[in-house]
Amino acid sequence: MGIYDEHLDRNAANYQPLTPLSHLARAALVFPDHTAIIHGSLRRSYAEFYARSRQLASALERRGIAPGETVAVMLSNTPAMLEAHHGVPMCGAVLLSINTRLDAAIIAFQLDHSETKIVIVDREFSGVMAEALTLASVKPLVVDYDDPDFPADAPARKGALIGSLEYEALVAEGDPAYEWRMPSDEWDAISLNYTSGTTGNPKGVVYHHRGAALMGYGNVIAAGMGKHPVYLWTLPMFHCNGWCFPWTLAVQAGTHVCLRWVRAKAMFDAIADHGVTHLCGAPIVMSTLINAPAAEKRDFTQTVTFNTAAAPPPQAVLAGMRDAGFEVTHLYGLTETYGPAVVNEWKREWEALEGPERAAQKARQGVRYTVLEDLTVMNPDTMEKTPADGETIGEVMFRGNIVMRGYLKNPEASAEAFRGGWFHSGDLGVMHEDGYIELKDRAKDIIISGGENISSIEVENALYQHPAVQTAAVVAKPDEKWGETPLAFVELKPGREVTADELMEHCRARLARYKCPKEIVFAEIPKTSTGKVQKYVLRKMTT
Amino acid sequence: MGIYDEHLDRNAANYQPLTPLSHLARAALVFPDHTAIIHGSLRRSYAEFYARSRQLASALERRGIAPGETVAVMLSNTPAMLEAHHGVPMCGAVLLSINTRLDAAIIAFQLDHSETKIVIVDREFSGVMAEALTLASVKPLVVDYDDPDFPADAPARKGALIGSLEYEALVAEGDPAYEWRMPSDEWDAISLNYTSGTTGNPKGVVYHHRGAALMGYGNVIAAGMGKHPVYLWTLPMFHCNGWCFPWTLAVQAGTHVCLRWVRAKAMFDAIADHGVTHLCGAPIVMSTLINAPAAEKRDFTQTVTFNTAAAPPPQAVLAGMRDAGFEVTHLYGLTETYGPAVVNEWKREWEALEGPERAAQKARQGVRYTVLEDLTVMNPDTMEKTPADGETIGEVMFRGNIVMRGYLKNPEASAEAFRGGWFHSGDLGVMHEDGYIELKDRAKDIIISGGENISSIEVENALYQHPAVQTAAVVAKPDEKWGETPLAFVELKPGREVTADELMEHCRARLARYKCPKEIVFAEIPKTSTGKVQKYVLRKMTT
Repeated sequence: MGIYDEHLDRNAANYQPLTPLSHLARAALVFPDHTAIIHGSLRRSYAEFYARSRQLASALERRGIAPGETVAVMLSNTPAMLEAHHGVPMCGAVLLSINTRLDAAIIAFQLDHSETKIVIVDREFSGVMAEALTLASVKPLVVDYDDPDFPADAPARKGALIGSLEYEALVAEGDPAYEWRMPSDEWDAISLNYTSGTTGNPKGVVYHHRGAALMGYGNVIAAGMGKHPVYLWTLPMFHCNGWCFPWTLAVQAGTHVCLRWVRAKAMFDAIADHGVTHLCGAPIVMSTLINAPAAEKRDFTQTVTFNTAAAPPPQAVLAGMRDAGFEVTHLYGLTETYGPAVVNEWKREWEALEGPERAAQKARQGVRYTVLEDLTVMNPDTMEKTPADGETIGEVMFRGNIVMRGYLKNPEASAEAFRGGWFHSGDLGVMHEDGYIELKDRAKDIIISGGENISSIEVENALYQHPAVQTAAVVAKPDEKWGETPLAFVELKPGREVTADELMEHCRARLARYKCPKEIVFAEIPKTSTGKVQKYVLRKMTT
Repeated sequence: MGIYDEHLDRNAANYQPLTPLSHLARAALVFPDHTAIIHGSLRRSYAEFYARSRQLASALERRGIAPGETVAVMLSNTPAMLEAHHGVPMCGAVLLSINTRLDAAIIAFQLDHSETKIVIVDREFSGVMAEALTLASVKPLVVDYDDPDFPADAPARKGALIGSLEYEALVAEGDPAYEWRMPSDEWDAISLNYTSGTTGNPKGVVYHHRGAALMGYGNVIAAGMGKHPVYLWTLPMFHCNGWCFPWTLAVQAGTHVCLRWVRAKAMFDAIADHGVTHLCGAPIVMSTLINAPAAEKRDFTQTVTFNTAAAPPPQAVLAGMRDAGFEVTHLYGLTETYGPAVVNEWKREWEALEGPERAAQKARQGVRYTVLEDLTVMNPDTMEKTPADGETIGEVMFRGNIVMRGYLKNPEASAEAFRGGWFHSGDLGVMHEDGYIELKDRAKDIIISGGENISSIEVENALYQHPAVQTAAVVAKPDEKWGETPLAFVELKPGREVTADELMEHCRARLARYKCPKEIVFAEIPKTSTGKVQKYVLRKMTT
């Protein structure tokens, strides 16, 4: 026993659980009058945001919610969603954010599996929720959220009221001065996110207060957020808790600009009118911005940082974004890693790069977040690191404090994911000489043709280099002779034309023969609500 | 037992101890070629800085240093000091940085009390260290640091070699590829700093890896550090581990610019030649910059952030700093809080303030760091919060993860400091209506005259408003009638004159009669190496 092992223990003065709730408390203390939320005509200061979050927490507690119980929400990017991210954990409960594009059966599964006690549902989704509630075994208290700033130019309509009370009535039951519960341990669960699981039941990914608090610092550093950023909500908050940005912004007392639907005009208006400095989204959101009709575009003077993930930004899109005044930062992560945990940390010397060289550099996923402890590429069988040669494909592995606690009620899946003391991402990639990783494919998306591994991403990148291609998705097609062959689905830009033969020729000029698609199908490509291509849908079309 | 309490435990994949060593590892991985250290003619990249730190750790381990043992250093702001901040904890040891202005008896006490096993000493201080070693009971291995970039224009000389080997020879014994030891727990000690304790023996303040890692984020946010800051070392690194900036800079891959002696010319040269963006220091450093002869000043285009603490920046100094291109951020903290834990978080609306209003706003200590959990002002007897009225004086209290583990081998002092679950700072202050604290005095510096509390800071501020006053220090003088009365020591600016009567008149125009000094003494005011006025020396002169 050394001299530092005695009489130097934890106490309330020198140890407190890490929690993102503390970030909001500080922002409200220091910048009470600063605008925290903009939504349509609504403005909420940090004092109001904090008070309403506490009031919600108090109301939930008065409705019987105990620490460690689940409160589910099915909400758009609205003030209620931001309040839920704070108010639910403030009473010790766990927030389940349901993907608003899911069908009733999966929603019912999530409600049952998480033993949801209260569900708050936006009227836009009350139809599917009503159906889910008939399927579910649990009987949660149902609260309607009737957004007073529901846009007039709606691509969707408000559904019926299906709950016992409305959200504002629930909030009104609480005490805005409620002393929120510090988590008893920073390891306590703060939220639950189900993976979209293409086969079998979804898995419930559990986040803790420690990780969510650290993500506040990690996001601020990765996104280069100074004091008072203005953040536009193009990324759904139900997606990995909006990459933890609902909690992150309070670290720098930023302004949330809510957005129910991602449309070019609304985005440009927010950027020009509210001085947006940051937004996040899949590459599809970038395309929407660049390809917007001139009448919907607006001039703005600030540089806007666009954090993208899900797929490497294609070269043409990158160039278009620069011309339009956006800095693109490429991030990568999974639901299991609190959203982004890897950043394409951009180096000064790369500023001189142009065109394909710049895009190639930007396409790499990069290096660990400051708050992630380690990131590597390994052979999952031997758990040995692959050589940093940029060529040897292995599985991308994560380790650190922004890796999930595990899958809820699924110790087998958790054990499998954490095999050997690393989180197995299921993504295949290479480690470059300079320590940057680059994804080559999802494990299930790799195409094995004649014994050779073909990266579907590599083939897609070749297709994207054709000026007529809007979206490309390559999947494996079963083949008697080769085992599998690459099948390409292509969506063209409006008004552009190209034949399959021309595209084949284009690919042969850029790829080894065996990697070229054997077949090209022109079709509208199915995407998730977050803009990810749904390859499993395409894969069904191949058989 | 709730559903979130089962099968969601910690493992190597999802839990790693927080440590600032991880920040350096990342900077070396991502920016290996970026300059980490500038010292005279020397340049070290992050790859080199990381390798040398590991090499030092390896050498220490080979010399028998075990985890939890103390390695002491008595070093200036040199590369060796930066390496020690990383290399010592990398082998699990604890870094004791000895104040280079201490006398042999106190140094001997620190070596014995910390059971130091190895001491690394700069030749500038080998004389006093040699003496200390004859007084100390412990017999550590002594290593000389012979700085090859010891400036030619030295106000001090190199002393004799007193050790068994030189620092470079020690480092050469190690393996630069050494796999450094992750702390077994983030609560493990990383460093030891003795308070300067004016009475009795110094107390050894123990920091842990968790706090030092979090300070990386807290400092970056408080100081507004973007990517690649350039940090000038005017603050001694032996002072609260340089407010943790030796560890912090790696978070943003910044450049350390070393500086052995704080002189205007060297500072301006560094700012102009190396593009310094940040520096820290007591108000005396600001005066040195502003009052430098024209020949020593240099033009520079960047805005330089100057983080100051120890005393509120006087109005004239603030104005002078703005004119000279510096942004002053006012921080506050104690050795027990890892250096700064409070920041005068500056609001946009205050930018319009000028002169005394601006200085008054800047003089307040402010609000908690993002990584500090709570900060308040309480009546230490009742442990009740004082009203937020800007007037009721109480004791400033801290709570959170950047409060020390405690005092080494001093459970009584630790218990006293942590009484009631808060760290008692010993500083007296008020809570303003807007949640900002303002110091009124050290508990022992308050003057109680005729039953009325007089803040010595308030009297000093009045004196500082006189254009001839360079430094003012007010202490209590025992008085038969009043108990105590304020006695002012004043140091005038070079070439300026003012009489005691004129200053008395100046004070009476600004202060209540009972607060005015009863006596004014013109004298050179004794200061610590960090520019703090040594009131205990002045106090001895009053009796």
